Amino acid sequence: MDHDFDPFTAADYAARMAAAAQAAADAGLAGLLVAPGPDLAHLTGYRPVDTERMTLLVLAAGQDPVLVVPALEAPDAAKSPGAGALTLRDWADGKNPYAVTSPLLDVTGRFGVSDNAWALHLLGLQRELPATSYASLSDALPMLRAVKDERELARLAAAGEAADAAYEQILHVPFAGRRESDVAADLDALLRVHGHSQVDFTVVGSGPNGANPHHEAGDRVIRHGDMVVLDFGGLKHGYGSDISRTVHVGEPTEEEQRVHDIVREAQLAGVAAARPGAACQDVDRAARAVITEFGYGEQFIHRTGHGIGVTTHEPPYMVEGEEQPLVPGMCFSVEPGIYLPGRFGVRIEDIITVTENGCRSFNNASRELALVE
Amino acid sequence: MDHDFDPFTAADYAARMAAAAQAAADAGLAGLLVAPGPDLAHLTGYRPVDTERMTLLVLAAGQDPVLVVPALEAPDAAKSPGAGALTLRDWADGKNPYAVTSPLLDVTGRFGVSDNAWALHLLGLQRELPATSYASLSDALPMLRAVKDERELARLAAAGEAADAAYEQILHVPFAGRRESDVAADLDALLRVHGHSQVDFTVVGSGPNGANPHHEAGDRVIRHGDMVVLDFGGLKHGYGSDISRTVHVGEPTEEEQRVHDIVREAQLAGVAAARPGAACQDVDRAARAVITEFGYGEQFIHRTGHGIGVTTHEPPYMVEGEEQPLVPGMCFSVEPGIYLPGRFGVRIEDIITVTENGCRSFNNASRELALVE
Repeated sequence: MDHDFDPFTAADYAARMAAAAQAAADAGLAGLLVAPGPDLAHLTGYRPVDTERMTLLVLAAGQDPVLVVPALEAPDAAKSPGAGALTLRDWADGKNPYAVTSPLLDVTGRFGVSDNAWALHLLGLQRELPATSYASLSDALPMLRAVKDERELARLAAAGEAADAAYEQILHVPFAGRRESDVAADLDALLRVHGHSQVDFTVVGSGPNGANPHHEAGDRVIRHGDMVVLDFGGLKHGYGSDISRTVHVGEPTEEEQRVHDIVREAQLAGVAAARPGAACQDVDRAARAVITEFGYGEQFIHRTGHGIGVTTHEPPYMVEGEEQPLVPGMCFSVEPGIYLPGRFGVRIEDIITVTENGCRSFNNASRELALVE
Repeated sequence: MDHDFDPFTAADYAARMAAAAQAAADAGLAGLLVAPGPDLAHLTGYRPVDTERMTLLVLAAGQDPVLVVPALEAPDAAKSPGAGALTLRDWADGKNPYAVTSPLLDVTGRFGVSDNAWALHLLGLQRELPATSYASLSDALPMLRAVKDERELARLAAAGEAADAAYEQILHVPFAGRRESDVAADLDALLRVHGHSQVDFTVVGSGPNGANPHHEAGDRVIRHGDMVVLDFGGLKHGYGSDISRTVHVGEPTEEEQRVHDIVREAQLAGVAAARPGAACQDVDRAARAVITEFGYGEQFIHRTGHGIGVTTHEPPYMVEGEEQPLVPGMCFSVEPGIYLPGRFGVRIEDIITVTENGCRSFNNASRELALVE
């Protein structure tokens, strides 16, 4: 049974934009400059490709939201879900989009700007209005998209269920003798079968490839005796899934089983640390402490997690030094790993959300070391 | 018969980086800051995904090239084609990548920075070194990737031939009664059959959808009597293709044929204007003059062309106001169009390269209005 999700309306987006403008004012900013990408998707539902042709949403408290768009793209922007809550202002090829934008801005203001806005556009605005200043949105307003409401949580839960279902089914495909890329294609197809409109990544890291956490899926033929890291996700109803499990082709060695057990314990410890009032870095510390205690601290070479929402990968980050407190409605991954170069890797990952009393997991597929064929 | 293309070596990339550093010095810049994307692909062959984890190539005359990379991605960077010509400097999750980068920079220097570098990273550097200043690479060094050498031209020619072959074959698939997205999938498959490793876009704009130059391919079922704009391309051997042709399902009306003839004449006029010493805007003016003369000037709502190379879409732009002179080895599209809202559109596009005496086209498929079924 799938769920029924009413699309967000222009009124929903209007409320998000008003809240964002108010949050900006409260943070002492003159406004927000929002580029194509997750910030714009969250605030307007509009997901254009980001290019050298500037698209920029200008939000400021007490001012109607204005979306500056290339004239060519104005028809698409006008059809976007949040268009009814926006004024469009277009600029034609060959014109200066910064000159179109600058009258909308306080000429001495400080603005929050989307992390992924192009340097080209930021430099264009800095040149046009030399007395303005800028801060990245993740620095200036780290909570802008971090706390999800009930309707967003329902979508993230549905995406998590779909990823769980894909994982349970992938255990029944043959692994030994097939390329990593073949299993990756199976994962892609399964995510789509379970309602994903977009697949962002399908990591299949077999044997030594599993020891590179950044490996995607390649030509290596999976062998009997391999550990295989699976890490996959995408968007369903516009919200992200992201799950990792590590499986074994045939019976594991004692060492392989032990490393897997340690990562599993670390993952549980990270999840257990996630509750209101703890800081992001506490989740990392809790997971890392377990791995360090068992002597693999040097082999856990990445942060413990990242936020998730309208994209599969966003702030906040569960990393040492991130003191942002956890609050109910935040959603993020808990994904410790151990990587033994030239040999194998293990990673286990769930998406969780912070609740009033602790947290709950959107991924509930078994975390035991599954044996595949 | 396909061509044989030796991969570019570390020595090739070393030469490109040295030339870029020298060009930066000649332009009065202290150096170049190169982000993931086409600039980095051109200079190092490395094509990582660009994320909030900063990857940045630092080039300065008289200084060895340094690639600052996330520790997690260092193994991938070390395997990239240009790695032998680079020093890698990595930074671990939770550390400040700007503090790792700043010792490599002249603290009062002016730097060219990739257009698509994240604002997050530019702001991080501006914060770390407040006396530095920045210009976008397309403003500061517009010629950095604009002139292609013989080996690059051979690759672009091969990509163009492949796109021509895909176009010739698409004329034999059924159009009427199928969705735009079905024809788009055929185009994708054909580009891959003809050696593309990546497909960037497959526009199928039928009937009124053709009047939106930004339309990709949707659910509309193509009908007898439709004009259909096809615009598709991607990468082969790491270099881009991009071709547009407009076809008709069954016999065109007199008006449809006339609009097509005008665009064809405009396209030829644009190509004829492309020669050393002309400016980018002259190509636009030549094509636009034809369309304006026939009374459709207001319906030609975009610039006439864009550069192409390691990406399918890059500077320079053939647009009014772009005074950059054309020089041999520049490669770009010439793609005028006429768009009649609610009715249909026509666009014809070739990729050409400027030669000593004029230009030559990488697309040579027929530009007559082809009739499909």
